[in-house]
Amino acid sequence: MELNYFNMPFAKKLLKNKKIKQKVNNCLNFLFSPECEMTGWVDYPVQYDKTEFKKVKEISKNIIKNSDVLLVVGIGGSYLGANAGIELLKNNKGKEVRFVGTNFSARDLLEHLDYCKNKNVTINLISKSGGTTEVLIVMKILEDFLKKKYKKNYLDRIIITTDTTKGYLREYATLNNIETLTVPSNIGGRYSVLTSVGLLPFAVAGLDINKIMQGAKTSYDEFKTNEFENNNVLKYAILRNYLYSDKKYATEVLGSFDPYMESFGKWWQQLFAESEGKDEKGLFVCPLSYSKDLHSVGQFVQQGKRNLIETLVYEENENKDIIIENIQDESPIKYLEGKSFNEINKCAYLGTLEAHKNTGMPIFEMKIEKIDEFNLGYLYYFFEASCAISGLLLGVNPFNQPGVEDYKTNMKNLLRNN
Amino acid sequence: MELNYFNMPFAKKLLKNKKIKQKVNNCLNFLFSPECEMTGWVDYPVQYDKTEFKKVKEISKNIIKNSDVLLVVGIGGSYLGANAGIELLKNNKGKEVRFVGTNFSARDLLEHLDYCKNKNVTINLISKSGGTTEVLIVMKILEDFLKKKYKKNYLDRIIITTDTTKGYLREYATLNNIETLTVPSNIGGRYSVLTSVGLLPFAVAGLDINKIMQGAKTSYDEFKTNEFENNNVLKYAILRNYLYSDKKYATEVLGSFDPYMESFGKWWQQLFAESEGKDEKGLFVCPLSYSKDLHSVGQFVQQGKRNLIETLVYEENENKDIIIENIQDESPIKYLEGKSFNEINKCAYLGTLEAHKNTGMPIFEMKIEKIDEFNLGYLYYFFEASCAISGLLLGVNPFNQPGVEDYKTNMKNLLRNN
Repeated sequence: MELNYFNMPFAKKLLKNKKIKQKVNNCLNFLFSPECEMTGWVDYPVQYDKTEFKKVKEISKNIIKNSDVLLVVGIGGSYLGANAGIELLKNNKGKEVRFVGTNFSARDLLEHLDYCKNKNVTINLISKSGGTTEVLIVMKILEDFLKKKYKKNYLDRIIITTDTTKGYLREYATLNNIETLTVPSNIGGRYSVLTSVGLLPFAVAGLDINKIMQGAKTSYDEFKTNEFENNNVLKYAILRNYLYSDKKYATEVLGSFDPYMESFGKWWQQLFAESEGKDEKGLFVCPLSYSKDLHSVGQFVQQGKRNLIETLVYEENENKDIIIENIQDESPIKYLEGKSFNEINKCAYLGTLEAHKNTGMPIFEMKIEKIDEFNLGYLYYFFEASCAISGLLLGVNPFNQPGVEDYKTNMKNLLRNN
Repeated sequence: MELNYFNMPFAKKLLKNKKIKQKVNNCLNFLFSPECEMTGWVDYPVQYDKTEFKKVKEISKNIIKNSDVLLVVGIGGSYLGANAGIELLKNNKGKEVRFVGTNFSARDLLEHLDYCKNKNVTINLISKSGGTTEVLIVMKILEDFLKKKYKKNYLDRIIITTDTTKGYLREYATLNNIETLTVPSNIGGRYSVLTSVGLLPFAVAGLDINKIMQGAKTSYDEFKTNEFENNNVLKYAILRNYLYSDKKYATEVLGSFDPYMESFGKWWQQLFAESEGKDEKGLFVCPLSYSKDLHSVGQFVQQGKRNLIETLVYEENENKDIIIENIQDESPIKYLEGKSFNEINKCAYLGTLEAHKNTGMPIFEMKIEKIDEFNLGYLYYFFEASCAISGLLLGVNPFNQPGVEDYKTNMKNLLRNN
């Protein structure tokens, strides 16, 4: 990955500033120290559980053999990472993966059940705590569905991904002899995509999970070993944090010119919003999909309130392509004759970058040679590490999410008292 | 619709303030005056072209009869409104509608073509100017696809929706005797959902377009006749504008507890971002989907930087439902036994409203009895009118989008010179 930045005249000096260097080193020391909790993800690309990894592969092979669809039941960090990668890279080596249990909508669940009625189905329940309301409700309905379909053998159609030892789902799995995978207890939901939480859905969808881990390891190695001056994880964190400290900036948008990056944007949004949005701090983060959104929020990005930062992820090569040929002389797009979709998309990207640069807005440009498993793993780790450092620089705990409890508590009280 | 607002102690006084009343009256006078351009949408619910409306119905009947899929080719205002309504209300009286031409992705287009290869297809090209690059490129590829499938008769499979007289697509339709529908020249893309731009896709998807227009008319009547004190269109605009003028607020989120409202959120986002995001002004607007996003941006909404305004759209009755029965005694959701998804979703809504109120954040609550065609039409018009007044109060022209041109100009220059 190549990281560039524009409209940040302060950057060069800042990245050489000794006080900043010291501050970042303090964050790094803390992140790698035992006092910092929920950091199991930090060394995970080199210290992941190889037995578990092998188990993921075996289970996925079995699902690909005996199922048409894998229904993943999870909310937040339990589905966003897997959804992102599968939208980008699903292929015909695997099977369809659908995500349910992200809401309390009967219509949504019934539509999934209707879709699955004549198909062979496996379900993967994912809840680290083992007690997520959305997951347990949908689990109940899906179990009834599986019972009708597979009679006595329905439990063979369930995989539970949860804490190693604790929680209702772990107990339930033990009691009923259900196949399980684990979420390490020191890794939170939004940092869990490289664990079984993401890896099983990836493998079922036909993604090469070895390559994902290799990409993550490369990013990890760069993060651990690159000098301060060449460390992109740190650069992104430091510059973001500096921009935030200038009260002018309220929002960061993540723009991409690949429509299949939309779910990746939602993963990125959760990562940063949950890690930094606390103690009345943080940038509001919002993913955008270009060129679509250039005909929408694009107007605001170009000419609206100057409180935005933009991060652009750009893929230099896309595989599938179409050449545009035999265009009528009268057509306004006559000049595009002989051009390919990729060429046009590249010019849309460069044209947008130029237009956005001209607004004076601070822009990060992340160039990826190709979106494949390796670079996907790389990006996951890159953003996780950078978000952690950014959060620590901001002075918040990037690994908790106390604000998510408030609606849950109210909801449960209302439901108990009705 | 019921409009409530919370954490706006200034509201009562403000809505009685004579200066504000005068300012709003000036905006209204301007909006209804001939000097204000691109306001064909304002009286449209009572003055729409009945012959065109009839034509939409006839064309849609024909498409339902002879096609499995309608491919709508359009970007921005040419698809967002239709996509929103169809996601909410598609039914088995109609046929499938898919939206293409919103990007320069070969993969996206190829996947649509692959899906359609054994199906009967009609395409609806929508571009008011008749020269939108995304639309003309995809048109070229789709025409080749139709030619192969329908030989000489392929032109019968195309409907063009464009300006009454001007532009390449209009000329092309005349020359080739292609069926057309019109976008009135005084209605811009993001205010066009109640014209043929939205109505044809709606009708093909099985939505009752009479009821949509009735809902819009009811909203229009309320907007035109209700006293200042009871005029929800004006209230929402005035309070939003007041909050904006307090420099504290940077972002408005639109939250809904219906996952099928996501596309409606994208329509709302374009409407406000393109109408107000200019002259270095405007709120950043972002739709959220709850409860999903409560496990993501929800953390920021609850505890992050206090620069948010929230608008909640809540549907009191949802039709399809599931009752949760026979829950194990050990399950953490035992207390939900006998409850329905709707009941739980309602408590999730009320629990969230309470939690968000407790943050002190200004909140608008829009209660809809039921999301149906009538209320959909009502909501479209409500937001259009409110956005227009809000933009005029902000001192911008809510009916142009000059910033959208910048990337296009750059892109075209790059493509011409390569």
